[in-house]
Amino acid sequence: MTGFVSFVSSGPGDPELLTIKAVNRLQNADAVLFDDLSSGPILAHARAGADMIGVGKRAGRPSPKQEHVSKLLVEYAQAGGRIVRLKSGDAGVFGRLEEELIALREAGIKYEIIPGITSASAAAAAAGIPLTRRLTARRVQFVTGHDVTGALPEDLNMAALADDTVTTVVYMGRRTFAKMADMLIAAGLPGTTRAMLAEAVSRPEQSISFHTVEELARDLAGHPSPAPALILYGPLAQPDA
Amino acid sequence: MTGFVSFVSSGPGDPELLTIKAVNRLQNADAVLFDDLSSGPILAHARAGADMIGVGKRAGRPSPKQEHVSKLLVEYAQAGGRIVRLKSGDAGVFGRLEEELIALREAGIKYEIIPGITSASAAAAAAGIPLTRRLTARRVQFVTGHDVTGALPEDLNMAALADDTVTTVVYMGRRTFAKMADMLIAAGLPGTTRAMLAEAVSRPEQSISFHTVEELARDLAGHPSPAPALILYGPLAQPDA
Repeated sequence: MTGFVSFVSSGPGDPELLTIKAVNRLQNADAVLFDDLSSGPILAHARAGADMIGVGKRAGRPSPKQEHVSKLLVEYAQAGGRIVRLKSGDAGVFGRLEEELIALREAGIKYEIIPGITSASAAAAAAGIPLTRRLTARRVQFVTGHDVTGALPEDLNMAALADDTVTTVVYMGRRTFAKMADMLIAAGLPGTTRAMLAEAVSRPEQSISFHTVEELARDLAGHPSPAPALILYGPLAQPDA
Repeated sequence: MTGFVSFVSSGPGDPELLTIKAVNRLQNADAVLFDDLSSGPILAHARAGADMIGVGKRAGRPSPKQEHVSKLLVEYAQAGGRIVRLKSGDAGVFGRLEEELIALREAGIKYEIIPGITSASAAAAAAGIPLTRRLTARRVQFVTGHDVTGALPEDLNMAALADDTVTTVVYMGRRTFAKMADMLIAAGLPGTTRAMLAEAVSRPEQSISFHTVEELARDLAGHPSPAPALILYGPLAQPDA
C-alpha cells in the first residue's frame, strides 16, 4: 500500500501560528520530513514513535539537495503510511513545492497541501502594518531576492518592483539587497522610500527596524549575516509611529 | 480600565485553518466583533457568555459602515475587557485593517494583530498550484478588483499586472474582471494566459475551475453572482493536470 503525503505549512515560526489542521496531520503522521527551520515545539506535535527525518534544508534557500529531498519523500511514501512533509511559512510561497509535487506525481503518489501563514503576513502583523491600504497600496507583491544559485535573479520585472505606491516584500533578500536597491533606484524607485527589515519573524528573538531603501541597502552590505530576513518597502503604514 | 483589542485573522473559511493563537484569543474574549463571512464553527470557540457582535460587513467588501464598525470597536474597548475583532483571511490583506487601527490609536487603546492564512494561499493549495515557481513565477502579486465604491480602481499599474511571467491573484474581482481583462490585454497580457476561478475557498461548497483570461472574462460578464471569488492568472503550474 502506497502512502499519502500531506504537505503541511508550519507558518513563520511561532508554534501558536500552526493551524488546527497542521497539528492534526502531525499527530497522525507515521513519518515527518522537516527542514532546519522547523522548531522543536512544532515537531513535538508528532506522536511518539513517528519517524522524524530532518532533510537538512533551510526552507526556500538554495540547496543542492532538492533532488535528494524529493527522492527521500517518494521513498517514504512508497513504504506506506501517512507522511507529513513540513514546510516553513506557506508551502506555496518560495518553498520549492513544485519539484516535490512533480516527483510524487511521477511516482503515482497521492497528496494534499495544507496552506499556512506566509512570513510577510506575520512580519506586517508584528509591526502593526497592513500589507494593503485602501487608498494607496492597492497591490502587494512578494519577490525572491535570490535564485537557485544564491544570486539575484536576472529576470526581475524592475518596472513592477520599482513602484513605490505598492507594498513589496523581498524574501531571502538580505545578501542581494544592496544590488537590488541599485537596480530599483535606477528603475525609478526613490531611494527615500520607506523600508522595514524583519528578522526571526514571530520568534522570541524577533527584530524589526525601519529605514529608507538606500540606508537599508548600505547597512546590509556592511553587515553580512546568515540569519533569515524579510525586507518590506513601499508606503508602509505605521499607525504606531 | 480600558480594554485590549486582538485583531484575529480567521483564515479562508475552513474552521481547521484557524491557528492555535486565534483559538486561544477567541476562548479568552469578553466580546467578539465579527464579519458576515465568519462561520458558526469558528465563532463557537468563544466561551459561553461572551458578547457576540455581528458587524454586518462582508470582509473586504465596500461598505458604508466602516466608520460605524470602527466606532463600535472603540466603544467596546473603552468598556474594558478582552475584545476580539475577527477578520476573514489575513487581517492585513484587503481587510481595511488600517482604518480600525487608526481609530484605536486615536482613542489610546492598545492592540495586537494575529496573522492568518490569506485566501490566495488556500486557493492555490486546494488546486495543487504553488503561488511561486523556481524558474518561472519568481513574483506573486495580490490586487483588489474594486475600490471603496465597488468599481475597478483607476490607478492600477497595468504594466505590473500584465506581466504573464508571474502569478497574479485578484481579490474581489468577479464583477470587474471583464473590464480588467480588457485593460490587461490592451497592456500586453496574452488573452490566452491561464486563469483559475476559485469560489468559496476551503469551504464544503468550494469550486475551482480553469480557463483562459479572455474566456473567464466573458463567462463572468455573462453570469453575475454575489458569491465571493478569487481569480488567479499567470503561468499556473498544475501538477495534477
